[in-house]
Amino acid sequence: MIVTEFVLDARLEKDSELVTHLGLCQLRLMKDARWPWLMLVPQRADMVESFELAPLDQAMLTFETNLVATALKTVTKARKINIGAIGNVVSQLHVHVVARHEGDENWPRPIWGHGLATPWNEDEKKSFLQSLSKELSA
Amino acid sequence: MIVTEFVLDARLEKDSELVTHLGLCQLRLMKDARWPWLMLVPQRADMVESFELAPLDQAMLTFETNLVATALKTVTKARKINIGAIGNVVSQLHVHVVARHEGDENWPRPIWGHGLATPWNEDEKKSFLQSLSKELSA
Repeated sequence: MIVTEFVLDARLEKDSELVTHLGLCQLRLMKDARWPWLMLVPQRADMVESFELAPLDQAMLTFETNLVATALKTVTKARKINIGAIGNVVSQLHVHVVARHEGDENWPRPIWGHGLATPWNEDEKKSFLQSLSKELSA
Repeated sequence: MIVTEFVLDARLEKDSELVTHLGLCQLRLMKDARWPWLMLVPQRADMVESFELAPLDQAMLTFETNLVATALKTVTKARKINIGAIGNVVSQLHVHVVARHEGDENWPRPIWGHGLATPWNEDEKKSFLQSLSKELSA
């Protein structure tokens, strides 16, 4: 039996930065300041679809997604949290968790595939991640 | 204590038709033949975000979503299943499960907010739903 290890997809790595490790997932921040946009990547090798995960991992992914979504809603006071597992471009399983506000870029349409990323201001990013980390550990 | 009952949002009702009742969710087919596009609506009153569901309901929603996604992938031989809980327009909690094929309309971008719905051919719809129901009860 050959055991393959989890390796983060190169494009996901380039487009995001690590925030923290949860039990199953890497929690990452997208390098795009247009929306508060997080991503969970289950650290399991060769996963494409959420339903390919082992049952316990499916439950963990739900738990961690909802944990992060709750914290993100609290921190951003978002009108709506958008959650999506799409993966048409990058097939490695990853779940987007995005805070949306009325009138934000492309509202009320989805964010994916829209326009070009805007870099974060370093101070704003630091402040956002501090608030998020505090809320996640509350 | 006032107990409010689940009532399907009028727009979700207009844009989709009932396929079957799962344990928690209504499984519905979108009235748009451009993609095999299903929707799960948890039958709980006043729900907007998945993380507002009771913990057991969160687990059920994951289970039913993955059950439906697995069946949809088998029936359609899709390249990728797209799963999303967005709700910027219709706030009642609903989860999209969509079969995507390389080169389908708007590939590899998401389907939401793209163009206008195409009605199903009745025979094709019947055939698709028969295959899906068979797979769901397998």
